[in-house]
Amino acid sequence: MGIVVQKYGGSSLADAGRIKEVARRIVESKKAGHDVVVAVSAMGDSTDELLELAEGVSPLPPARELDMLLTAGERISMALVAMAISDLGFTARSFTGSQAGVITDSAHGRAKIIDVTPGRISAAIADGHIVIVAGFQGVSQDTKEITTLGRGGTDTTAVALAAALGAAYCEIYTDVDGVFTADPRIVPTARRLERVSYEEMLEMAASGAKILHLRCVEYARRYDMPVHVRSSFSHKEGTWITPSQPGEEEAMEQAIIAGVAHDRSEAKITVVGVPDKVGEAARIFEALAASEVNIDMVVQNVSAAATGLTDISFTLPRTDGQQAMSALAGIQDEVGYEKLLYDDQVGKVSLIGAGMRSHPGITAKFFASLASAGVNIEMISTSEIRISVIVDEAQVDEAVRATHTAFELDATEVEAVVYGGTGR
Amino acid sequence: MGIVVQKYGGSSLADAGRIKEVARRIVESKKAGHDVVVAVSAMGDSTDELLELAEGVSPLPPARELDMLLTAGERISMALVAMAISDLGFTARSFTGSQAGVITDSAHGRAKIIDVTPGRISAAIADGHIVIVAGFQGVSQDTKEITTLGRGGTDTTAVALAAALGAAYCEIYTDVDGVFTADPRIVPTARRLERVSYEEMLEMAASGAKILHLRCVEYARRYDMPVHVRSSFSHKEGTWITPSQPGEEEAMEQAIIAGVAHDRSEAKITVVGVPDKVGEAARIFEALAASEVNIDMVVQNVSAAATGLTDISFTLPRTDGQQAMSALAGIQDEVGYEKLLYDDQVGKVSLIGAGMRSHPGITAKFFASLASAGVNIEMISTSEIRISVIVDEAQVDEAVRATHTAFELDATEVEAVVYGGTGR
Repeated sequence: MGIVVQKYGGSSLADAGRIKEVARRIVESKKAGHDVVVAVSAMGDSTDELLELAEGVSPLPPARELDMLLTAGERISMALVAMAISDLGFTARSFTGSQAGVITDSAHGRAKIIDVTPGRISAAIADGHIVIVAGFQGVSQDTKEITTLGRGGTDTTAVALAAALGAAYCEIYTDVDGVFTADPRIVPTARRLERVSYEEMLEMAASGAKILHLRCVEYARRYDMPVHVRSSFSHKEGTWITPSQPGEEEAMEQAIIAGVAHDRSEAKITVVGVPDKVGEAARIFEALAASEVNIDMVVQNVSAAATGLTDISFTLPRTDGQQAMSALAGIQDEVGYEKLLYDDQVGKVSLIGAGMRSHPGITAKFFASLASAGVNIEMISTSEIRISVIVDEAQVDEAVRATHTAFELDATEVEAVVYGGTGR
Repeated sequence: MGIVVQKYGGSSLADAGRIKEVARRIVESKKAGHDVVVAVSAMGDSTDELLELAEGVSPLPPARELDMLLTAGERISMALVAMAISDLGFTARSFTGSQAGVITDSAHGRAKIIDVTPGRISAAIADGHIVIVAGFQGVSQDTKEITTLGRGGTDTTAVALAAALGAAYCEIYTDVDGVFTADPRIVPTARRLERVSYEEMLEMAASGAKILHLRCVEYARRYDMPVHVRSSFSHKEGTWITPSQPGEEEAMEQAIIAGVAHDRSEAKITVVGVPDKVGEAARIFEALAASEVNIDMVVQNVSAAATGLTDISFTLPRTDGQQAMSALAGIQDEVGYEKLLYDDQVGKVSLIGAGMRSHPGITAKFFASLASAGVNIEMISTSEIRISVIVDEAQVDEAVRATHTAFELDATEVEAVVYGGTGR
């Protein structure tokens, strides 16, 4: 049956009872004939508790030591899961990221996986053990220091292990039943997707869907690793994330639209009265890049002929807002713009679907649905399989619901169950 | 000035405030010109909390996974101490036992240190860093598995690092001001010893003094490493444990007696009516050894001529009591003894002093002091520098006080301060 890699997040491992439940689920897979490798996050809120301890001794702890501290969280949960499995009569071996051969670069707190050398894991599998690996962590190639992977780290660990071990697929266990056509907290009639392509999932992740982190989906796509996102609180089938099938956009049964995503984490900055000369926009975005500010959408108005001035608007994570405003203020004289406007009361609503490649009129229908719901569009950005708009934050829910209904995504009955918090 | 190794136990690292205080103390040593290497225990009660978590998922967790779990405790405290040092403007690097080169055998939960290869520590010292090492843990030589050292583990880690690094001395920071002539909770007038020899400290540790574990003192003696036991809650000088000086027993100023130790952790078993034949005692103690029961004192009565039967009494840790009684019950037919008596209401009082080698009459004076205090002696055992008696547990305090006074150990004023619990 081959190797299956499973990932369990913090909410799936919140206490002893949950850990025992996870152990039973792992053993079920083993009994079904799989070789099982499991990546685990830290229990429940334990990462936050470790961060609090760090804050207690140092306002700005060194990144190396913060990684050393935080990796204790997964170490604790992996040992407990291994114990719970042993209690069910199966043998398990837990391994730290370093022992599991998760090799990273040296960027503490946001390390990238460079290589996976799972020799010890393979040996343990060959000996008949279930293998538990600490997610979110690795060891740096050059300095042999303990590193952490940052956001989405444990999902990425699971997919990376699956790729390195040649697993049949990777199961991401979380606290929802899969990927839905919209956030069920906003759209109670959202439907679970049986399958989405890597490309659609990437666009959904980039558009604010929190179910999987972008880097994890990117990793899965690079290695063509099928990912099954499902709940650790039920035994329902979840959502499969797989390569797009040839010609599938044309098939009648394939939905045109995969879903509606939204994102409230962005702010909008407008640089007002920029002289409409070659190189002005470049200078602005160079300054932002130098401050390590991540830009999402950009819109430049048509220059007013009378003044020769234009406005440039862009969106960025709210957490980068202050940084960006300082960087821009520093080049006001150089660029000669008039003023800066900062607006963090915006939201992004995105329509995603590989089917829109071959179906014209999607954009028009999307905008019409927003208009009839009285939602004003402030900015627009598109990709081949996504349309995103920036709207007033207060209208995000209404925009999502209107779009969901307009594209006939509503289920006839409520499918979604939200079980707990969100792990890392 | 060379390298100094310091050890801080759990009570010295109970919370953020204590960790900052420890960091200040470490930085003081660095400022004084030392290269400082620190071995730390887990914070306060965190080891007990981890054990509780383990109990929650498995009544009998595998030893390998228990070690994986427990080593998270020191990982957390070492990272926090390193952060607190960094906050004081000095750089620190924390290392796990494995990273620090603490090589052990494969006995999970009670591993022995086989070798110390402190390459990374030396490199970090050369780079000017303060080094923090997780105590109580190592990595097994053959299987590269994470191990823990068991009781006294962090003290032993500190002394082993000191020996491997050629440190000038090893400071064991604890919650008392040093080694006292008796337990200050029983004898308020107990005096702090400025110096004791390894041999005396070994006998005190073996006799129930909890200040240092036997194995740590053994390690220090093997490598002639001076150990300074002192409080992390004060700046007072503590007790130096060093080699005996040539001819020091004869010197007038050297106390004959180092102190009075006591131990309430033992039980006494009497095998009544053993046929007085060659090999009977051997069979009894072979059965006990096969059950991994540790024996302390042994007394065999003179055989009664009329019956040809004798009684054999021995003491052992109370925790081994049930194990021992079962083992002995299993050989009753074979040995042909009459019955077993179990008494866990006993205590051991020991008088220790290198000076007793050259001073006759110590034993007589000890017994006389017990007699005048109305304490009945149940068993006696002696070494070259120690006399131990087993007495009724209820009379232990009285026996200790009477002995302490008889040997003129009482201070004129109270010296001892007890600051907190006891770390591991």
